[in-house]
Amino acid sequence: MVKISVLYPHKDRSPFNMNYYLNNHIPMVRQKLGAACKGMAVEQGLAGGMPGTEPTYAAMGHLLFDSVESFQAAFAPHAATIMADIPNYSAVQPVIQISEVKLS
Amino acid sequence: MVKISVLYPHKDRSPFNMNYYLNNHIPMVRQKLGAACKGMAVEQGLAGGMPGTEPTYAAMGHLLFDSVESFQAAFAPHAATIMADIPNYSAVQPVIQISEVKLS
Repeated sequence: MVKISVLYPHKDRSPFNMNYYLNNHIPMVRQKLGAACKGMAVEQGLAGGMPGTEPTYAAMGHLLFDSVESFQAAFAPHAATIMADIPNYSAVQPVIQISEVKLS
Repeated sequence: MVKISVLYPHKDRSPFNMNYYLNNHIPMVRQKLGAACKGMAVEQGLAGGMPGTEPTYAAMGHLLFDSVESFQAAFAPHAATIMADIPNYSAVQPVIQISEVKLS
């Protein structure tokens, strides 16, 4: 199983519209990716590891797929539509990481 | 539910001993944190979002707790022991983030 993590830096405390993300963006992404996407998760940054520090990421979205190839095949046809929705909830460019799930 | 994410930067391609992490560090952390820890997950970085790019993080570990207070109460007594084990599998300082789980 691979996890695609989309990490939105909490840069300059740029606002992140979690309401829009959860209620508009994520459902749209789920619909576009279809059955290839085996799971989705969303987290909102609260704090860093040291007391009183800001979180590194304002929000994190995660998508599960059977393989990198399965992700690419599902994502490519909708990449432009999905990316074009980002400015509706965030002004920052997300960090994207593809990982192998070792323990869940 | 809150998630404590421990992100190990893939800096200078510094090696990360996933075998030690999965088979020694994570079981030790699980034992120390006890029942307050509601779940653990581990991912190994494969690639960045753009073709041919390196992942931002070599590995990510995640711990689930009912609340920030529950995490702090479980972690504080064992923080020194847990942190002292890091050099056994990684030479980098992890980025730690506390998040609220919005969708899982």
